Amino acid sequence: MSATDFPAWSRDVAGRMETVLAGLLPSPRITPSRLHDAMRYATLGGGKRVRPMLVFAAGEVAGAEAARLEVAAAAVELIHAYSLVHDDLPCMDDDVMRRGKPTCHVEFDEATALLAGDAMQSLAFQLLAEHRLADDPVVQLQMIQLFAVACGSRGMAGGQAIDLDAVGQAITLPELENMHIHKTGALIRASVLLGARCGRPLGAAELGGLDRYAKCVGLAFQVVDDILDEAADSATLGKTAGKDREAGKPTYTSLLGLPEARKFADRLLGDAHEALASFDARADRLRQLADFVVRRDR
Amino acid sequence: MSATDFPAWSRDVAGRMETVLAGLLPSPRITPSRLHDAMRYATLGGGKRVRPMLVFAAGEVAGAEAARLEVAAAAVELIHAYSLVHDDLPCMDDDVMRRGKPTCHVEFDEATALLAGDAMQSLAFQLLAEHRLADDPVVQLQMIQLFAVACGSRGMAGGQAIDLDAVGQAITLPELENMHIHKTGALIRASVLLGARCGRPLGAAELGGLDRYAKCVGLAFQVVDDILDEAADSATLGKTAGKDREAGKPTYTSLLGLPEARKFADRLLGDAHEALASFDARADRLRQLADFVVRRDR
Repeated sequence: MSATDFPAWSRDVAGRMETVLAGLLPSPRITPSRLHDAMRYATLGGGKRVRPMLVFAAGEVAGAEAARLEVAAAAVELIHAYSLVHDDLPCMDDDVMRRGKPTCHVEFDEATALLAGDAMQSLAFQLLAEHRLADDPVVQLQMIQLFAVACGSRGMAGGQAIDLDAVGQAITLPELENMHIHKTGALIRASVLLGARCGRPLGAAELGGLDRYAKCVGLAFQVVDDILDEAADSATLGKTAGKDREAGKPTYTSLLGLPEARKFADRLLGDAHEALASFDARADRLRQLADFVVRRDR
Repeated sequence: MSATDFPAWSRDVAGRMETVLAGLLPSPRITPSRLHDAMRYATLGGGKRVRPMLVFAAGEVAGAEAARLEVAAAAVELIHAYSLVHDDLPCMDDDVMRRGKPTCHVEFDEATALLAGDAMQSLAFQLLAEHRLADDPVVQLQMIQLFAVACGSRGMAGGQAIDLDAVGQAITLPELENMHIHKTGALIRASVLLGARCGRPLGAAELGGLDRYAKCVGLAFQVVDDILDEAADSATLGKTAGKDREAGKPTYTSLLGLPEARKFADRLLGDAHEALASFDARADRLRQLADFVVRRDR
């Protein structure tokens, strides 16, 4: 596929992920069916699938097989979707709208949403252990380990805890950055590294470049989220707009103002391209994806 | 250690687990410290450590190294402890007392308890991937897979969902059994199988025997829990007594009555011993542990 048809490629990844996730999630015909319904509701039929795109794009750099990338991408997307389910619960952000439909606990109930999130996390690890993702099983164990760290208290869950502590607080730009490096950055980095490790072994310089790329894209993703939250309306976003500001949550736009936040996102985009400077055309999808993350309108 | 000193052995396992878990859990000096505090609060300083005992006792059958069993036992106990944290939340059982102290969301807050449970699950998988548990890494991937299935929607989380659906319902004995096979049985089976697979490869007959043993002990554990919940007071139990009955939850005592429930537990104990009939003295710890599970008074 040529580098010019990014929209077609991204639609292809999103469509494929829908099929893959629908096949890997337990059927609602299996007991407990309400729980399985909730897991499918929270995972299928929505989302930009940015993390799966990162898995596939990083996999292209390492020439990874599509079958492996599909499993890795499904695991990442399950973790992302479970984090949204728990994040939307009344004791967290108490949100009622997500991806243009009622949040999981509104559609089902709080207890079912809690357990669905828990079971989605287990399923992600199950997939990473039961499918072959690397020629060397020792590499596969390392992939599971890096993924678990990205999900845990020093990764995504830790970022959510830092976020909780920050509500209503005056925090600095480095503190905000630290929160996002954990809350969204960790799983985005894991997406890139998992995708790359599904293929041929890369050298330390290549892995280092991918990691720098992922850090920049992860942070840019959040800055743009804040910009969109400030500028867009709920219908375009598919979730409640302006909510972070109302909740007293620190954002890039509240700290920097809209124009400076836009400049910051552009600078991060430049850094992401710079991190890939020594890569050949196999990194073009990653380059396009960085552009997409920063230029998107929802 | 001779087969006669079970109390000393069980104290040794419990003491060792406290040290191992304290070392493996993130320090509260690391950010986010409140989250790490909550994870440690929910895991350390309490619990009967029955699942770690099962890991160690099954490990003896297969001559497994203590260092491997410690990691496997820590992973199992983290999952058990996280399930209690989430189970105690207001949207689930809404319990305020656990292991003789305030539940995690009472001591901290709901959001922190939710995230602590989430991060404890991630940590369990991280441990199983980052430490060497089997000579063959392919076996280790199989161990992670069976563990993930035991935690997920067709294991422990699924059992909690079945439990939710059963509140206030008239259910039959087979339905109650199905709930417990998932809710507590799955993790107890995983404890035995993980412990055994840390050691020398066992044959299908031996693994089958261990699996039957684990099923009987898992179910007996729950029957005895119901008997104790009915008969004991809160001070002895360290948690709110009689709560299941008040909540309209079906129990073995409510379905069978106390005397029949006691007979059922004894029959399961006999079946557990029967499943180990072809094993030599290396299975004595498992035999003693079955006796302990059924004869315990809290």
